[in-house]
Amino acid sequence: MCDFHPIPELQKHGSFLENVVDILFKNVVFTTNLSKVVLWKHPEDLKKTFDFSLDQHGTSHEKLLALIKNTIKFSVKTGHLYFINQLFSGLDPYGLAGQWLTDALNASMYTYEVAPVFTLMETTVIQEVCRMVGPDWQDGMFCPGGSMANGIAIHLARFKYNKSIKHCGASGMPRLVMFTSEESHYSTHKFAAFLGIGEDNVIGVKTDDVGRIIPEDLERTIAEEQEKGGVPFMVVATMGTTVRGAFDPVEDIFVICRRHGLWLHVDAAWGGGLIFSQKHRSKLNGIERANSIVINPHKLLAVPQQCSLLLLKDKAILKQCHSKGAEYLFQKDKYYDQSYDPGDKHLQCGRKCDVFKFWLMWKAKGSSGLARHVDAILETAEYFESQIEARPDYLLVSRRQFINVCFWYMPRYLQGKTDAVKECGEQLHKVAPQIKAVMVKHGSVMIGYQPLKEFPNFFRFVSQNSALSFKDVDFILDHISEIGRAIFQ
Amino acid sequence: MCDFHPIPELQKHGSFLENVVDILFKNVVFTTNLSKVVLWKHPEDLKKTFDFSLDQHGTSHEKLLALIKNTIKFSVKTGHLYFINQLFSGLDPYGLAGQWLTDALNASMYTYEVAPVFTLMETTVIQEVCRMVGPDWQDGMFCPGGSMANGIAIHLARFKYNKSIKHCGASGMPRLVMFTSEESHYSTHKFAAFLGIGEDNVIGVKTDDVGRIIPEDLERTIAEEQEKGGVPFMVVATMGTTVRGAFDPVEDIFVICRRHGLWLHVDAAWGGGLIFSQKHRSKLNGIERANSIVINPHKLLAVPQQCSLLLLKDKAILKQCHSKGAEYLFQKDKYYDQSYDPGDKHLQCGRKCDVFKFWLMWKAKGSSGLARHVDAILETAEYFESQIEARPDYLLVSRRQFINVCFWYMPRYLQGKTDAVKECGEQLHKVAPQIKAVMVKHGSVMIGYQPLKEFPNFFRFVSQNSALSFKDVDFILDHISEIGRAIFQ
Repeated sequence: MCDFHPIPELQKHGSFLENVVDILFKNVVFTTNLSKVVLWKHPEDLKKTFDFSLDQHGTSHEKLLALIKNTIKFSVKTGHLYFINQLFSGLDPYGLAGQWLTDALNASMYTYEVAPVFTLMETTVIQEVCRMVGPDWQDGMFCPGGSMANGIAIHLARFKYNKSIKHCGASGMPRLVMFTSEESHYSTHKFAAFLGIGEDNVIGVKTDDVGRIIPEDLERTIAEEQEKGGVPFMVVATMGTTVRGAFDPVEDIFVICRRHGLWLHVDAAWGGGLIFSQKHRSKLNGIERANSIVINPHKLLAVPQQCSLLLLKDKAILKQCHSKGAEYLFQKDKYYDQSYDPGDKHLQCGRKCDVFKFWLMWKAKGSSGLARHVDAILETAEYFESQIEARPDYLLVSRRQFINVCFWYMPRYLQGKTDAVKECGEQLHKVAPQIKAVMVKHGSVMIGYQPLKEFPNFFRFVSQNSALSFKDVDFILDHISEIGRAIFQ
Repeated sequence: MCDFHPIPELQKHGSFLENVVDILFKNVVFTTNLSKVVLWKHPEDLKKTFDFSLDQHGTSHEKLLALIKNTIKFSVKTGHLYFINQLFSGLDPYGLAGQWLTDALNASMYTYEVAPVFTLMETTVIQEVCRMVGPDWQDGMFCPGGSMANGIAIHLARFKYNKSIKHCGASGMPRLVMFTSEESHYSTHKFAAFLGIGEDNVIGVKTDDVGRIIPEDLERTIAEEQEKGGVPFMVVATMGTTVRGAFDPVEDIFVICRRHGLWLHVDAAWGGGLIFSQKHRSKLNGIERANSIVINPHKLLAVPQQCSLLLLKDKAILKQCHSKGAEYLFQKDKYYDQSYDPGDKHLQCGRKCDVFKFWLMWKAKGSSGLARHVDAILETAEYFESQIEARPDYLLVSRRQFINVCFWYMPRYLQGKTDAVKECGEQLHKVAPQIKAVMVKHGSVMIGYQPLKEFPNFFRFVSQNSALSFKDVDFILDHISEIGRAIFQ
């Protein structure tokens, strides 16, 4: 492509980049015919195998290309159908094209001046998602991940409680307390610590048998904290919890928040993509009651990492809370109206463009295409659950609420036993880790496991790859059974 | 490349991606022969010109490719030689290759399990940069930008002051105060607000005539704040301030910090890349005295956005301060030692891989190649300054400390006047914005301007593109003069 270039140095760089693209096409982008999700190496073995070293002298293109091939060889293929390990997977061609363009333009999102197309595109996407949430939704921002987005929501809620905190800090404040499900994402705790609220002031609310907040327990904990002198200021509800995919009863929680004057934040990082699905949108009913929402298009919608949206009802609060007006960036005497510059309402200064890949996917597929994607994944999850129920060597942890199917593989000696989970919990706890280790060493399937509350280790099926078929589900379960039989019988 | 693929859908996607790469090569990656840095449109005109709309239905590949071309057409070419507008520029082919591979593998950096090569690579790069700083340097983390990295440093400093804050929050604490140059980056204030410290508790220390902290003023402000009941806990020094590129006298500041028991953080986001240069490394003397340092390889070293490193002396503090031990990610019964998982010491959960592009550039060029890059940029800056001094229609704002050359274009009626800046400040203030507007509308050169302290608007030259030659400097200054003459005479 670059043979025409008159400068030899650039010609050399051009052919290097062409070679890299060729390697990526052949070894990463189209992975359907790759046999392994991962070529497992123990960390210490990988250190010996891969040349990580850095030194004074440069490296030839030939060697660099070999290193690139090795990087791919020993990396996990997160785009592989059988990578069902996290709340992200798949490799969308439009998303990837969007990323590649974003990288080539290497923009930073503080000003219209530096990122004219991308800043307006952000506004379009934020407005469009706001419109889908409800008529009162006005503003938003892209954040470097859902944890940060949740953190900013907490910050805004505290600012709403008392605006003087921006200037004076929290040291003179009463002890503020916030409430969230005992199954909510750990970012709430991490950012409560970061913000100077303190993790102990994040009060865990009990969940029911499928993982949803019990509103009565929220009421009880609020009263209890008030008695202890704490000042409640917000509730973080979850729509799509990390492990069980549960949806908190947001309508009921909203009524409690309204009564106590609390900010309601909905962490829909995982569940929020449902907003595109006519069929399943109702799972998000009540989300519009919130003051703030987090939706991660990089999860359910399979946008490449990272793409995380914080949405707000209050149009003014981001600017009020974050603005600092640095004059080297946001000059007041610009050749265009400074209100087109989004940077001052953000916490980051330089900020990578996360919108383009999402916009391009949305443009390519239309809202209807994204809906089909979501519906297909849910159909697969439904089938996965039905298979768990149908197969004698599997047991469901709790009723499926969303994509997540939580299940135990039951070795033969535990099958059919009533109360096997309770009575043989210690043995069962060791089953998933052993099976997982074998699968990873085979490189066949990557699937996550974890304990939760009183439950011993169980597997969690999640996929965001709409190409995963019923046949694949059968393969995965047959495969786990096979390994399970080999280990435990 | 993908013609061989047996699945027609993937064949179609393959040829779409090939087309995108082709467009990127021809229109973005090799821009030396592009005439314009930007094709300027007013925001409202761009809205009419570019089809931002999103709707129900998808879009054909043909239309998508046209939209991609338009995105490029109306975006700023930050890789263009004459983009000297921000503290980032240039488009390194190895950096870009690294980004493209990172995107294709779409890893998340929480666990070795999901990102085996990249997590070990992070350790290598962090250890190597630590080694270059000094023997006591032990740990670090990649952050989504320098602002966030500075924020985390403040968080760690406060945690060091009183560890109970992680659990109990700041509400019972005394009023903590911190100190930084009145010319330091605004992120310190933004994150002091975010962390619940409060912006008013960030005390600005006076700077000298070239923009460096005056140590005596630091002493004075510390005493003053103590008298008012504030509790000093940290100083943020800067090595390479945003506007003037000044280096605070870190050795002197360290002595003050030691006497008062304060955490010393050095924001070397801009200047830190000097660590590679034998010739200029001494500008960073004393940096090893700090408790924490921020270096942004995406600035001076021209690594693509984002690549920001926070380094620490204390090996244990990140884990102590941030750890939450979420069991769905950091299982204690893993098939490998959990200590290889970096995620728990971070605030982010999902985290994009920022290391690979940096590692690949380093590997490709060697430390010596990065040194040559830094030395070349400094040589150009030196020439730029000498030209400002040699040309009658230019005036230096203050002596150059680093890359940044801060200067006024002086319309003829102000040339040669002593005290022109003081006496005609109001008129001079309007000069840079007017020239800038013309340049952007031409699309010829993008260069930043801002006021600072008592100085009216002035231009700031910065470049991270080692291909910028003396001839380019002459062109840029001739060009500004030409526009200046046309407007003001």
